[in-house]
Amino acid sequence: MSDDILSTIKFDAAGLVPAIAQQHDSGEVLMMAWMNRDAVAETLRTRRVTYWSRARAKLWRKGETSGQEQNLVEMRVDCDGDTLLLLVDQKGVACHTGRRNCFFTAVRDGRPVEIAKPLVDPKTLYEK
Amino acid sequence: MSDDILSTIKFDAAGLVPAIAQQHDSGEVLMMAWMNRDAVAETLRTRRVTYWSRARAKLWRKGETSGQEQNLVEMRVDCDGDTLLLLVDQKGVACHTGRRNCFFTAVRDGRPVEIAKPLVDPKTLYEK
Repeated sequence: MSDDILSTIKFDAAGLVPAIAQQHDSGEVLMMAWMNRDAVAETLRTRRVTYWSRARAKLWRKGETSGQEQNLVEMRVDCDGDTLLLLVDQKGVACHTGRRNCFFTAVRDGRPVEIAKPLVDPKTLYEK
Repeated sequence: MSDDILSTIKFDAAGLVPAIAQQHDSGEVLMMAWMNRDAVAETLRTRRVTYWSRARAKLWRKGETSGQEQNLVEMRVDCDGDTLLLLVDQKGVACHTGRRNCFFTAVRDGRPVEIAKPLVDPKTLYEK
């Protein structure tokens, strides 16, 4: 069933496509990460968002360590087929720093300014 | 002034960073495109969003041909410094197809489904 959309998506030379995660009801942009074919197929099959970790070179089911899962509400593809928008329901926080989203640095007068504080201690996300 | 943020941003091996454009008030994700250092600097200096066109290998001031400009409200950088979120005020439509945003294809039952129609005839955007 998912073959059709997989043939629509244009993966880059590394076999990846950027995926923007947006909280489905508030419109908050949570993060951007990368998917390969397997990550797209797994996400559509399970409705649990799975990315490709470029740093670890493996599939990364969001929240598998931290518990901060993303449940897929809808996947969208852009006009060129080379970017995905994931409407999700984020459990807890999306950012590994403990903030709700990863875009907590604003540029003001050409300089970075922190505009959001962690909601949870990041240590509690990754320590068992 | 903008040196500081330019040293914060991590451009990839091709000298580019992905930039997500979001309508500042509605939260609508409009498009994703790429910026190099010059595009970031130009966007911050002029407050008119300028991307790097990978297809044309040149700076591309959004709306320069179509008139569908993006005015920058705020630039944000993610936790890793390798993705930008642009809060913008989009004049007219963001997508070259004449739709408000580029993510008009939803994935339903593994298949692509068009969920938005053009608001303007794309021919009128690029013909003078």
